[in-house]
Amino acid sequence: MAGTARICSITNALAVVGERWSILALREIFFGQRRFDQIVAGTGASRDILATRLRTLVEAGVVTKELYEEHPPRYEYVLSESGEQIAPILLALMEWGNRYVTEGAPPTVFRHSCGAELHAETVCGHCRAPIRPGDSTVVRLGEVTPA
Amino acid sequence: MAGTARICSITNALAVVGERWSILALREIFFGQRRFDQIVAGTGASRDILATRLRTLVEAGVVTKELYEEHPPRYEYVLSESGEQIAPILLALMEWGNRYVTEGAPPTVFRHSCGAELHAETVCGHCRAPIRPGDSTVVRLGEVTPA
Repeated sequence: MAGTARICSITNALAVVGERWSILALREIFFGQRRFDQIVAGTGASRDILATRLRTLVEAGVVTKELYEEHPPRYEYVLSESGEQIAPILLALMEWGNRYVTEGAPPTVFRHSCGAELHAETVCGHCRAPIRPGDSTVVRLGEVTPA
Repeated sequence: MAGTARICSITNALAVVGERWSILALREIFFGQRRFDQIVAGTGASRDILATRLRTLVEAGVVTKELYEEHPPRYEYVLSESGEQIAPILLALMEWGNRYVTEGAPPTVFRHSCGAELHAETVCGHCRAPIRPGDSTVVRLGEVTPA
């Protein structure tokens, strides 16, 4: 059975935003840390690796580079429309990490515009009920094909 | 600034479920593919790597092994309570991949218990409004400390 893999949008998403330093870079930008040195400090990536990952994210259209200083030219990294839409991925990771891995208080806290501390929940887009284990059934699975 | 990293529940979550083959293995189990050979076929991982990743997931309490045949002993992999709670991460990746990477129809489709095709949305757990770019502000960021 070696040499096969499922055709899947999760695999496709991971190919663009799933590499460790890429997702941590996206997290830093999502946290408002838009400058290269800030992203290096927050992720813990080497400058070389981070530069490569940011270039790939820019090429994929997830992040854009914006000039914030002309002399010398300095850029900051901004989430594009598709980059903004990874918030659900980051927030789901954060909620899970807060609940099952981190000891003590959540290191990072957001406030939602409604005034409450933000705790993301995942709901069915149609009926708005929270997603619970066992309440969804597979209609179609992506095929397993030769990789 | 090298040698630092942010204390963050996203980093903590990735340490447990963020490795490529781990998250693909969790996806297969979430898709109902619970046997070792099925998970190998669906992920495309080598048997050795997959065995190691599954062992780590079992040790982390995310997955449990259940005997389904006694002679010879055969096991299937089942999501534990914390494993079930990675559904929001998988569904957020799937929605993003469907929207921004996959060409054509979504390879995998779920139906929610309400009867509609499942499209996961992320909402504020307090006011239930969908999370939109710019509607959340940082109250506290995890510290950047020597790594």
